[in-house]
Amino acid sequence: MIITRITARDIRFPTSQTLDGSDAMNPDPDYSAAYVTIHTDGPLKGDGLTFTIGRGNELCVAAIESLAPLLIGRSLESITSDMAGFWRHITGDSQLRWVGPEKGVIHLATSAVVNAVWDLYAKSEGKPLWKLLSDMTPEQIVGAIDFRYVTDAITPDEALAILQANMATREQRVAEMIRDGYPSYTTSAGWLGYSDQKLRAQCRDLMSRGWSNFKIKVGRDLQDDIRRCKIIREEIGWDSRLMMDANQVWDVDQAVEYMKSLAEFKPWFIEEPTSPDDVLGHAKIAKAIAPIKVATGEMCQNRVMFKQFMQADGLQVCQLDSCRLGGVNEILVVMLMAKKFGIPVCPHAGGVGLCEYVQHLSLFDYICVSATLEDRIAEYSDHLHDCFVHPLVMQDGRYMPPQDPGYSATMKAEALDEFEFKGGTPLTTASLN
Amino acid sequence: MIITRITARDIRFPTSQTLDGSDAMNPDPDYSAAYVTIHTDGPLKGDGLTFTIGRGNELCVAAIESLAPLLIGRSLESITSDMAGFWRHITGDSQLRWVGPEKGVIHLATSAVVNAVWDLYAKSEGKPLWKLLSDMTPEQIVGAIDFRYVTDAITPDEALAILQANMATREQRVAEMIRDGYPSYTTSAGWLGYSDQKLRAQCRDLMSRGWSNFKIKVGRDLQDDIRRCKIIREEIGWDSRLMMDANQVWDVDQAVEYMKSLAEFKPWFIEEPTSPDDVLGHAKIAKAIAPIKVATGEMCQNRVMFKQFMQADGLQVCQLDSCRLGGVNEILVVMLMAKKFGIPVCPHAGGVGLCEYVQHLSLFDYICVSATLEDRIAEYSDHLHDCFVHPLVMQDGRYMPPQDPGYSATMKAEALDEFEFKGGTPLTTASLN
Repeated sequence: MIITRITARDIRFPTSQTLDGSDAMNPDPDYSAAYVTIHTDGPLKGDGLTFTIGRGNELCVAAIESLAPLLIGRSLESITSDMAGFWRHITGDSQLRWVGPEKGVIHLATSAVVNAVWDLYAKSEGKPLWKLLSDMTPEQIVGAIDFRYVTDAITPDEALAILQANMATREQRVAEMIRDGYPSYTTSAGWLGYSDQKLRAQCRDLMSRGWSNFKIKVGRDLQDDIRRCKIIREEIGWDSRLMMDANQVWDVDQAVEYMKSLAEFKPWFIEEPTSPDDVLGHAKIAKAIAPIKVATGEMCQNRVMFKQFMQADGLQVCQLDSCRLGGVNEILVVMLMAKKFGIPVCPHAGGVGLCEYVQHLSLFDYICVSATLEDRIAEYSDHLHDCFVHPLVMQDGRYMPPQDPGYSATMKAEALDEFEFKGGTPLTTASLN
Repeated sequence: MIITRITARDIRFPTSQTLDGSDAMNPDPDYSAAYVTIHTDGPLKGDGLTFTIGRGNELCVAAIESLAPLLIGRSLESITSDMAGFWRHITGDSQLRWVGPEKGVIHLATSAVVNAVWDLYAKSEGKPLWKLLSDMTPEQIVGAIDFRYVTDAITPDEALAILQANMATREQRVAEMIRDGYPSYTTSAGWLGYSDQKLRAQCRDLMSRGWSNFKIKVGRDLQDDIRRCKIIREEIGWDSRLMMDANQVWDVDQAVEYMKSLAEFKPWFIEEPTSPDDVLGHAKIAKAIAPIKVATGEMCQNRVMFKQFMQADGLQVCQLDSCRLGGVNEILVVMLMAKKFGIPVCPHAGGVGLCEYVQHLSLFDYICVSATLEDRIAEYSDHLHDCFVHPLVMQDGRYMPPQDPGYSATMKAEALDEFEFKGGTPLTTASLN
């Protein structure tokens, strides 16, 4: 099977109209996807995406087009037989590397392309991605990883040992997941743009649907946050887990100060208290506000940054992003480092397509890497699932393992056509949600 | 004066044909510029650029176009009266921020736009940029800085105190610089693609023109490096300063190992021993190879990363890049942090346009911030100066202060036309160098 053509489309949903997704840093996101399709000389196609929040999505689309020549003409087999080499190839173009390296627009585009390759691979094997990964030998998984720049934190041999130690019990976790699903938490209640009344109603609705872990946005105004935290604790009680998310609005010392005033609501963690680039700042905050944990990762650009966050104890909860890291290959090594450092992986999701991806990743993490559910919950939000061909299945607040072949991000043709961005402001038709 | 229109052009020089600029990570760069012009309702225009090495330049051009709406319709006065606010505005678009934030393609584009604004500002005041900055009060300089995310390392008051302490002696340094110029070092001798014979010839030529500081590329092959280091020491002797540059080819522990074998050549520093994102890795290397220093910065994405490099002692020489950081505003705060931490700033240059920018920045650094030349040398390389309207003036290996108004990056119209990239491979006409 030869890759013959790669197409990229700019898909934007007008979510800013309902303030879904509003937080202290992002008042009016239009959930968007740079959507890539890998065409082959056979009947199969691979679909992938990276997630953005509107303006700038056009840059990711353009970057996918810049990466495309690195793939066209290659056989799928030449890629899957040397996954680490393929990943080095797509991230290592000596000229394109300058505009990263491995960060920002070019790495978001890398993610979309790499995710599409894995989608094609899984479809060609007739398996959902989580199952494809869970059926790979430890050697095959390690063979998919480019260890450049992380060998001071984890070596291929250490990665292999982690995976081998879990081999004997993989199948019982597969059976458990098929029966029970993977636990999630939701941010659908706590967007900053929601009224107090909507906040209460959302809490009740979500509890009735099985959730017991909730996240609230904070950081715009302290008194407002205190009022909203009171409401949410009234609704969810003190046995449910409450998390807080500041979306990078504070400086380091400010974060410490602000969190002292919110400590009474007993948050499990504060997410993104400051710049996503500030490893040492996060470490300082974490030390000052313990036992409240620090979580970050949705804007953590690559494995080199995650390595340092782990080495410096800058994060206690790893929220890797399926579309910000360079696709499945880079996610594998971040999960393995997290295991070595004893840090739970609770992937970032929401937006559009992220939940679809995350279900596969968390299943793989449990089955092959972490082998525990302690402090592990994958993010979930309610938006924009209907635009996908294989909608995800939630049951009592848990992600149920997908059964269809692929990586679940194939969008419906009519959604692609309706929400393709042609310039101007995004469409104002009713959201598909 | 109102900003009416912003144009961006994709300019690429076919430097890969002569292997100018070849190193272990970048075997065949085509020095390129995403070139922006700010048009106004008056006679003045502001020109700026960001530097890339070929493929990917189109993404920076597209990103400049994405940023343009943030500027169009604004008066220059509304910008210059609140420079920090302007910078927050251009880096803070809530949707565009997602595809950075403040890194990669979008931040390279920010740099080009911000540099063009300062060019326009300097032209409107009839001064070269270094003089415009050196005539600003400490309060005005601090007022141009967005301190978000760095107040745990430097406060506005601390920045003010640094600038005030140097006020009384500014004029004598201005006079000194006009007389003597700012010292430089050059990489023109040591590109990996050059033959041994060319390496010797380049050393002799450069020494005869006044240089006593030389940099050589290393990291592709140890035996080859040892041979080339021997040649260069034979040519330049042991009193001249030798620097080494690995361009990110090593993992952390590998860098330590490799440098042990090159220590006999007594390098002043090793540049970019590993990933530019790896603050803690650089710190580990620096500790292991002292007294050889570690230098980095040409790919250091923003002030938050520089802050950590300084906090962790991950660099002992700060090689900030005039086009990778978000323009003059962000450079100011990195220079002030370097002063506070006692770290010399030796800006990255070469490529196309970087030398033109760096002369202004190093003059400002000396006159207003560092007030010393100890261990301070700005990079210089010979390429592509003829394409600029106001070519730089080197004298005995020193940058002589530019006299023409602006920031020196206005390209000749014929160079822009000749080297504008229209797709396909870059032009193969003779380089302008």
